[in-house]
Amino acid sequence: MGSARGNGVVDKGVDFANYFCTYGFLYHQKEMLCDRVRMDAYYNAIFENKHHFEGKAVLDVGTGSGILAIWSAQAGARKVYAVEATKMAEHARELVRTNKLDSVVEVIEGSMEDVTLPEKVDVIISEWMGYFLLRESMLDSVICARDRWLKPNGVMYPSHARMWMAPVRSGIVDHKMNDYEEAMKDWHSFVNETKNYYGVDMSVLTNPFNQEQRKYYLQTSIWNNLHPNQIIGTPVIIKEIDCSTTSVDDIRSVRASISSSITQENARFCGFAGWFDVHFRGSSKNPAQQEIELTTAPDEYFGTHWGQQFWLPKFRQVFLLHPPLQVQSGDNITFDFSMSRSKENHRLMDVDLSYEVKQSSGKVLPRIQKKFYIE
Amino acid sequence: MGSARGNGVVDKGVDFANYFCTYGFLYHQKEMLCDRVRMDAYYNAIFENKHHFEGKAVLDVGTGSGILAIWSAQAGARKVYAVEATKMAEHARELVRTNKLDSVVEVIEGSMEDVTLPEKVDVIISEWMGYFLLRESMLDSVICARDRWLKPNGVMYPSHARMWMAPVRSGIVDHKMNDYEEAMKDWHSFVNETKNYYGVDMSVLTNPFNQEQRKYYLQTSIWNNLHPNQIIGTPVIIKEIDCSTTSVDDIRSVRASISSSITQENARFCGFAGWFDVHFRGSSKNPAQQEIELTTAPDEYFGTHWGQQFWLPKFRQVFLLHPPLQVQSGDNITFDFSMSRSKENHRLMDVDLSYEVKQSSGKVLPRIQKKFYIE
Repeated sequence: MGSARGNGVVDKGVDFANYFCTYGFLYHQKEMLCDRVRMDAYYNAIFENKHHFEGKAVLDVGTGSGILAIWSAQAGARKVYAVEATKMAEHARELVRTNKLDSVVEVIEGSMEDVTLPEKVDVIISEWMGYFLLRESMLDSVICARDRWLKPNGVMYPSHARMWMAPVRSGIVDHKMNDYEEAMKDWHSFVNETKNYYGVDMSVLTNPFNQEQRKYYLQTSIWNNLHPNQIIGTPVIIKEIDCSTTSVDDIRSVRASISSSITQENARFCGFAGWFDVHFRGSSKNPAQQEIELTTAPDEYFGTHWGQQFWLPKFRQVFLLHPPLQVQSGDNITFDFSMSRSKENHRLMDVDLSYEVKQSSGKVLPRIQKKFYIE
Repeated sequence: MGSARGNGVVDKGVDFANYFCTYGFLYHQKEMLCDRVRMDAYYNAIFENKHHFEGKAVLDVGTGSGILAIWSAQAGARKVYAVEATKMAEHARELVRTNKLDSVVEVIEGSMEDVTLPEKVDVIISEWMGYFLLRESMLDSVICARDRWLKPNGVMYPSHARMWMAPVRSGIVDHKMNDYEEAMKDWHSFVNETKNYYGVDMSVLTNPFNQEQRKYYLQTSIWNNLHPNQIIGTPVIIKEIDCSTTSVDDIRSVRASISSSITQENARFCGFAGWFDVHFRGSSKNPAQQEIELTTAPDEYFGTHWGQQFWLPKFRQVFLLHPPLQVQSGDNITFDFSMSRSKENHRLMDVDLSYEVKQSSGKVLPRIQKKFYIE
């Protein structure tokens, strides 16, 4: 099936209420426009590869404020179709007009899956990446656009994406555990008080409350600003995506069995960090003149001279493990990672993670299994 | 039309995503169950009026964890129907079972509008009150239940509700103005930088961004924990509701033209506070033995010995006015208040507020008009 949503059971109204509504606020657009790493990557990808744009037809999927469409036009595109599902389309149209590009850029308000263009395009550009790359499932819409509207030798911007993971240490695991324990302590007094003051025994809800709190504090992956020296083992790639050929089936779940070697002496293994990078390489028949990388890895981040304040807290995920494990340089962590879309909301992700530590002595510690949620 | 939603254009899936989902969390239920003012009012209303419950059939609209249904059963009800739209129904069922009331309380998962009961009931009990009473529009469902399922001489719990307003002073007005000004300052640097670094002129979005920020910082009514001495004028009632007779049309909008006398010397008039109370009086044919009041007024709140920490931040609204106005004891504030449901979401409210100050000298200051949103 070519359906961008795959299973076809998505209620569009609900999806709009849950998801698209955020993108209707200029405040949110501004946050993304203030992320210099993100902005520079796209800016350079476009203006250092003008040959992809000059005289060409371009489609921008989810144009938001219209910035990528405007740059595409400024780089010489003959025509840019800028599709946006939210009311932000009206602002994009104004922005295009006042930047005197309304003869080139056509803003179309509608969801990509429903839009009809008058021609096929040479380039599809989109900033579709969510938390840990695939949250939001927006790549679905880009794939749908590609299958319908990209010319056979057309180019995808970005052209490639990779998901990375690495073992990390982080004090947050203790804070989270503490918050969780406090919440449960509080619950127990609540149960006592409700029994004493109001004659109702709430203790049967202790287990479900415990589950709810565990999920919230310990099993929901968090965004965290890691320092590179918190990465205690070799980063590994768990997924590579070629945007020119990938399918919705290909990205609906991510599975990897892989190992990482501990590189720090006597480190406290507290969890896994996940991040991604995307690349602008053009296509094999129509390559980039200047390949551009947008990476959200810790070292790259701290390497930019704009520093932390420009960083959009959108990309890096940490899966915390409790209790932390003391590991040594040369130990090996083998893990099975499996991520799939949440049944209740196809834009959120469920993660199953199991791992075992093989010490350099050869001893293998018991395998541990955890469930996480990317919300 | 008997439709509880009035206009009939509510998408149920969207409504669930936007509204009901919160009530599916035990954490949220616990917050409400920890509000002693709320809990005591209902507890006393039930147990000091057992004659309304003994041997009777009761309907609890939106039972949540099931607490009101359980109390009704403990007070001697023959049968309690406890209707809950969210998955919380499963927890309520467990709670009923472990409190050994499953022969009396029947938990029904479904929305009130769709539920069919095997009999009419003697009592309808519900905690339907939202911010400033009517936010959430849940009274609609209670009215629907009443019209379909309450016996002619049946009793509503609560039986009456009132909305109050009073002029207040508050330093928050300065903080909010400051936050708004900072946001705009930040926007202007953003526009400059985007022009300089990335060649795109964003200035056409300044007005819409300004509107968005004004709405967020200055026009969205806030919850605030007022001290009684921040009330600078006589509180006035802007709406009275008899739960036994009111209709959805009756509560779809609230309009009042009324005045309040300033009671403090040389006070800074910064806005209006809104709150409500509800009463448990039974019906005229079947009155309460002990009338109970649940009030969210500042003085009552600070009068409880449980103090602030037990208060659920749900009830009191403040509409801030900028710039504040210096007023004197004996000055009179006449205001027109008009509240109606938001077009985009029938559970949120739009408020039009205009007011003029008549000084004790007889001089009338220019009328001022403001728009507010209860979100």
